[in-house]
Amino acid sequence: MANPIDFYFDYSSPYGYIAAMKIDGIAARHGRRVNWKPVLLGAVFKVTGGKPLPTLPLKGDYSLRDIPRSANFHDLPYRHPSKFPIASQAPARAFYWLDERDPPLAHELARALYRAYFVSDLDISSPDVTADVAATLGLKREELLAAIGSETIKARLKNEVDAALARGVFGSPYFVIDGEPFWGVDRFDQMERWLTQGPF
Amino acid sequence: MANPIDFYFDYSSPYGYIAAMKIDGIAARHGRRVNWKPVLLGAVFKVTGGKPLPTLPLKGDYSLRDIPRSANFHDLPYRHPSKFPIASQAPARAFYWLDERDPPLAHELARALYRAYFVSDLDISSPDVTADVAATLGLKREELLAAIGSETIKARLKNEVDAALARGVFGSPYFVIDGEPFWGVDRFDQMERWLTQGPF
Repeated sequence: MANPIDFYFDYSSPYGYIAAMKIDGIAARHGRRVNWKPVLLGAVFKVTGGKPLPTLPLKGDYSLRDIPRSANFHDLPYRHPSKFPIASQAPARAFYWLDERDPPLAHELARALYRAYFVSDLDISSPDVTADVAATLGLKREELLAAIGSETIKARLKNEVDAALARGVFGSPYFVIDGEPFWGVDRFDQMERWLTQGPF
Repeated sequence: MANPIDFYFDYSSPYGYIAAMKIDGIAARHGRRVNWKPVLLGAVFKVTGGKPLPTLPLKGDYSLRDIPRSANFHDLPYRHPSKFPIASQAPARAFYWLDERDPPLAHELARALYRAYFVSDLDISSPDVTADVAATLGLKREELLAAIGSETIKARLKNEVDAALARGVFGSPYFVIDGEPFWGVDRFDQMERWLTQGPF
């Protein structure tokens, strides 16, 4: 089978949300699987000097127009969260915990968490809120809360962030297909061409 | 007639080059004209804290893959300039000087300057090189060199950069259509939708 698509994202990233709603469908049309890899942009920015969008002069204001317009362009609902950005350790750890046991359900949880944050304006930085979202998928709150707090899962997330940095990931969403990097939901057109015809 | 599209760009911007080769065609298909407005990203970055792509950790390396791939995606030739980025006062001033007298020829000069830099690897930061490129379009070298050095044209460029900043321009290419801002050649798809159906 063809290589999977590696999909790096931060739960606090609006463009990551858009990508998360689309990437499995794109991959499936091209006979690819997707490895979902939540990362922490805060840790990435310490290395790159990057800063959260709202803090950037001019670009921050622009993003407030571009984000909802981009969601609309992709036929997705969007409500700008009242708290933005947020620390995303809780949902990221929840994802890796579940991904070790049930990858398809982990993808579903990832999308449910993104919708909770970017559509329902729930603050998923809270482990309790993340557990509430997981509960709607039939997962056990206490089990998930224990996992989020465990050293094993904390170390797993840290290792994933380090590996992502080593691979050059500097933003969200960030994709790697057959070794080729693509940054941004606005690279879907180039990714589709790559998936169709290979390198160009 | 419908509002023109304002197109802000820096002559040192590879994505601006791609946009410059496409925007007049896109606009024409939708019955719009284009106001070309070269700016100086160096001056813009002083306000925004932005930095040239090659200096950015990880993102700089990524851009070296993304830029030629994006040019390829848009069916354009591209050779990464041996000196990059460059100061772009000379070509920007040459543009405004010509635009006051012959806008269509000014657009042609803009594209010729971009090709000189991003295809032929000529250092258009030099007034002499800019004048050479202009001469291939039948313009008089000495007249253009005098214009580039004139206080009037220097002031014109400075005013245009100030006006662009006041409007929120923080990168290249940057477009404004009916008051709506679009940043990046990767917003062409959203611009096309806007031009077709209006606000979304």
